[in-house]
Amino acid sequence: MRIAFQGESGAFSEAALFEHFGSETESVACPSFRDVFLAVETRNCDFGIIPIENSLAGSIHQNYDHLIESQLNIVGEHFLRVRHCLLAKPGVRLQEIQKVISHPQALAQCEHYLRSLKGVTVEPFYDTAGSVKAVSEMESRDVAAIASKRAAEVYGLHILQEGIEDNQANFTRFLVLSIDSGSDPGEDAKTSIVFTLANQPGSLFKAMSVFALRDIDLTKIESRPLVGKPWEYLFYIDFLGSTTNLTITRALDHLREYSINLRVLGSYPRHRL
Amino acid sequence: MRIAFQGESGAFSEAALFEHFGSETESVACPSFRDVFLAVETRNCDFGIIPIENSLAGSIHQNYDHLIESQLNIVGEHFLRVRHCLLAKPGVRLQEIQKVISHPQALAQCEHYLRSLKGVTVEPFYDTAGSVKAVSEMESRDVAAIASKRAAEVYGLHILQEGIEDNQANFTRFLVLSIDSGSDPGEDAKTSIVFTLANQPGSLFKAMSVFALRDIDLTKIESRPLVGKPWEYLFYIDFLGSTTNLTITRALDHLREYSINLRVLGSYPRHRL
Repeated sequence: MRIAFQGESGAFSEAALFEHFGSETESVACPSFRDVFLAVETRNCDFGIIPIENSLAGSIHQNYDHLIESQLNIVGEHFLRVRHCLLAKPGVRLQEIQKVISHPQALAQCEHYLRSLKGVTVEPFYDTAGSVKAVSEMESRDVAAIASKRAAEVYGLHILQEGIEDNQANFTRFLVLSIDSGSDPGEDAKTSIVFTLANQPGSLFKAMSVFALRDIDLTKIESRPLVGKPWEYLFYIDFLGSTTNLTITRALDHLREYSINLRVLGSYPRHRL
Repeated sequence: MRIAFQGESGAFSEAALFEHFGSETESVACPSFRDVFLAVETRNCDFGIIPIENSLAGSIHQNYDHLIESQLNIVGEHFLRVRHCLLAKPGVRLQEIQKVISHPQALAQCEHYLRSLKGVTVEPFYDTAGSVKAVSEMESRDVAAIASKRAAEVYGLHILQEGIEDNQANFTRFLVLSIDSGSDPGEDAKTSIVFTLANQPGSLFKAMSVFALRDIDLTKIESRPLVGKPWEYLFYIDFLGSTTNLTITRALDHLREYSINLRVLGSYPRHRL
């Protein structure tokens, strides 16, 4: 099996891929999210995996846009706990470190820890896995990178400290994409939909009533204003249950009475962290 | 007036600052979002301005966290249209460009345009304004950066092409923060709140009824799972109207009957793009 992910080898997306599919899988690195979709659409890869939301950074609207534009189905989800590690060349001790490089978001997420390292300067880098690669290729031994444990293995670095993020509740949710709709997701399933509503007072309340009246539990709701169409909103909703269930299909039929466009992105087994 | 923003001079946050407060204002660059909050809390600055959501990249949960932790009030909002420009050294022509550098998100947002430039390589950089600074300090003349028009002025570069983003509907919403609550936001106002609900089927429906029953129009709703508390959710809601209005205060009192924690982040004049 070949699975497409965005980023360099050792990226958090690749870690999610191996956690979800097992370490025997072949991971295919893609430069951009769009390339992940293309790899699956052209059947170059069996599945793709993309981040859709992070507990600190929020939803990635761009990937919702790609989902809406493509005909791919969501066939799975995966929550990855983001654990940052401080990595250096083999043999280097923590006291020797003078500079730490990583993606600005990773640096920000380890702010308290970095402040505790007296006299250490911090330098932003375009990518977490890329910063590890850079350290591995450097002459000097006093620079450390912040990235995943896996990135240390990929580039032969040594872990100085693990779990250095300030907020332990840092996780990213990934979606698994396929050109075919998945097999029956079973009893403990989730469904993701997107739809548009006219911006009238109470229109969202009506839309939500189709779930509340049928005791369907929502796990995510998010509005996104459609720019250029100032009175319209796009809504992302995830709920428990799959489209193989009659109550769910009735709720969706009911929702079509109020919504302008409704697209079911997929029903898939729920992943519990 | 001194206003704090995150990033380097020429960043999109600074552009929003000048659009909102006028070009006579003194802008104060801060390394992190947390430093923006600190600058306002310690009265080193009169106001702070922070991005809260982007139409392509989504909400910035981290800044909601800072808002919840701090006692600062939202006293204004500002929508900034994000227009990317291709920038090079003075006198350089488009045909001479061999390499383009910028933040990966800016490169991704100009993907179609960049592909139209035959034979040009692309290299990620940690920051848009930083990439402009780098080009201005380079010996070679065949490198261009992608950033705001303002960054070109700050670092003395020349605009090769303006508005090169693939999606014209690219905007960022900023919030203006103050240690004092703002003056009366007037008739055309918005209010931002955060609250927690127990994850029971229908609990969000009840919470929304307090607005629907009073014909209060929502402009944003977003759920965010609380990690470590698997059955609880944090909700962000923005609605039209201010807490100086009796209908609004009654709706909020009503919402307190269902919600676990409710915090009013501020009422402020609505900004229309």
